[in-house]
Amino acid sequence: MKNVYIHPTSIVETDNVGENTHIWGFTHVMRGACIGANCNVGEHCFFEAGVTVGANVTIKNGNELWDGVTLEDGVFVGPRVSFTNDLYPRSPRLAQAAKRYRTRDWRLPTLVRYGASLGAGAIILPGLIIGEFCMIAAGAVVTRSVPGYALLVGSPARVVGWVCQCGKRLDLAGSVATCPDCSLQFVKEADILRPLMQEQVAS
Amino acid sequence: MKNVYIHPTSIVETDNVGENTHIWGFTHVMRGACIGANCNVGEHCFFEAGVTVGANVTIKNGNELWDGVTLEDGVFVGPRVSFTNDLYPRSPRLAQAAKRYRTRDWRLPTLVRYGASLGAGAIILPGLIIGEFCMIAAGAVVTRSVPGYALLVGSPARVVGWVCQCGKRLDLAGSVATCPDCSLQFVKEADILRPLMQEQVAS
Amino acid sequence: MKNVYIHPTSIVETDNVGENTHIWGFTHVMRGACIGANCNVGEHCFFEAGVTVGANVTIKNGNELWDGVTLEDGVFVGPRVSFTNDLYPRSPRLAQAAKRYRTRDWRLPTLVRYGASLGAGAIILPGLIIGEFCMIAAGAVVTRSVPGYALLVGSPARVVGWVCQCGKRLDLAGSVATCPDCSLQFVKEADILRPLMQEQVAS
Repeated sequence: MKNVYIHPTSIVETDNVGENTHIWGFTHVMRGACIGANCNVGEHCFFEAGVTVGANVTIKNGNELWDGVTLEDGVFVGPRVSFTNDLYPRSPRLAQAAKRYRTRDWRLPTLVRYGASLGAGAIILPGLIIGEFCMIAAGAVVTRSVPGYALLVGSPARVVGWVCQCGKRLDLAGSVATCPDCSLQFVKEADILRPLMQEQVAS
Repeated sequence: MKNVYIHPTSIVETDNVGENTHIWGFTHVMRGACIGANCNVGEHCFFEAGVTVGANVTIKNGNELWDGVTLEDGVFVGPRVSFTNDLYPRSPRLAQAAKRYRTRDWRLPTLVRYGASLGAGAIILPGLIIGEFCMIAAGAVVTRSVPGYALLVGSPARVVGWVCQCGKRLDLAGSVATCPDCSLQFVKEADILRPLMQEQVAS
Repeated sequence: MKNVYIHPTSIVETDNVGENTHIWGFTHVMRGACIGANCNVGEHCFFEAGVTVGANVTIKNGNELWDGVTLEDGVFVGPRVSFTNDLYPRSPRLAQAAKRYRTRDWRLPTLVRYGASLGAGAIILPGLIIGEFCMIAAGAVVTRSVPGYALLVGSPARVVGWVCQCGKRLDLAGSVATCPDCSLQFVKEADILRPLMQEQVAS
């Protein structure tokens, strides 16, 4: 692997780590996990086989990514976000539950889309899609899929506003908004917020 | 210890680990802790002296079990469940609190009964009994003892349904239910759900 | 450093650790962090450069203290409290967010005052002051600054009572209270609870 930094206390068993990625201490990346280029992975993390992480992702300390978790490019994972992949877990060693764990059918995926942010200690139920550029507040418990650009807080998490690609909160006047920081314009139609493309802005 | 796997980065100071148990990396088991047979213990865990874990238990990554925590057979502990043993903690090094910490009277136990499941990031207040085969949702904050077979969600956690021994949700028609997956039958009397024994089913 | 215990699996890169402080396993203290005398620091912790911890502080396992976090003397940090220092985080490697991370202006501080207790799994939003001798319940999500001596629970955390310096709950009769354990007297004026000084008690 080219120009990858791995702290001496960490264990990286995959060859699939992209260029310029840093992996800090006490972290374990299993064979079969895949981490893109230019990422920063904090301490005390765990990447199970079957995890895919894109490029330019920041993963703070204490994160455990299970088989089935995919992070697209540019995602931010705050400290100790809880991912899950089993909707009603039992110990597979428990006789009454063993049958369900004979196959991998119990395993549900999680997809975190481009540029999304997951706040500290957030909890993500299994089988959900976390929309692009959304922002999940610290401590939120996410029980449903999340629309792009949405700001969610609470337990269970609910949409309380909308944010720009840069993270700044948007003030929706009617169904349009302009980011005060980066001037990106947005339009909201049928509960979906989307950025206006340059051509649309110009017309 | 017979046929026990301990990852080379882990520290196990007790001899009380049962046969066929696996202990993964960066985990510390103190002298005086006891772990049963056929368990799976994830990474970045801590077992304090005074902890007792039964057989066939699955403990995912990042769990810290304090003195006074007992897990019966077949329990599932999701990633980073928070156990506690002090109802109103202060730093024992703080002069105003030092008196209380001269004895161990402040320490409250936690008992997790046979086959129960604790979801990712759940928080268990001290001094509680977590009933057999109950299921605590990810992110729930458990502030009262939990009846067997109950499904709990939220902060504070409240009972929202009932589950079978296999984990499947039960649909109570009146006061009886049959698991759609494993055909186990249940009856509910005075807020207590219990499985019908075979003799009762036959009669 | 004089009489400092550092577990052999830990990495301590600062010389600023006070006398009689213990640092347990799998913990990393960065150069530029500062920890006072007579502290106890648990396993799987991380102290970033820019962290300041006073004397007589107890920090349980799994805590990550980021640049900008200050703990005064006698503070208790339960297992896996989430501190934060960015109000709307994005991956700094994301092109749309890179501008904001060119300076350190995004970084908000956290100040935890003398004798406060933070319960297991609590989440502390950035930019707040956590008042002296307050008690944050396990699992609380703290979104506003906290008055001294207040007891907070829930998500978002709200004040539900008041506690003594020793941690015991106070029963406010009107606007005055006396701790049943240590006899310290308190008076409440305009939503602020404060201990009566000895002279005031005598008069």
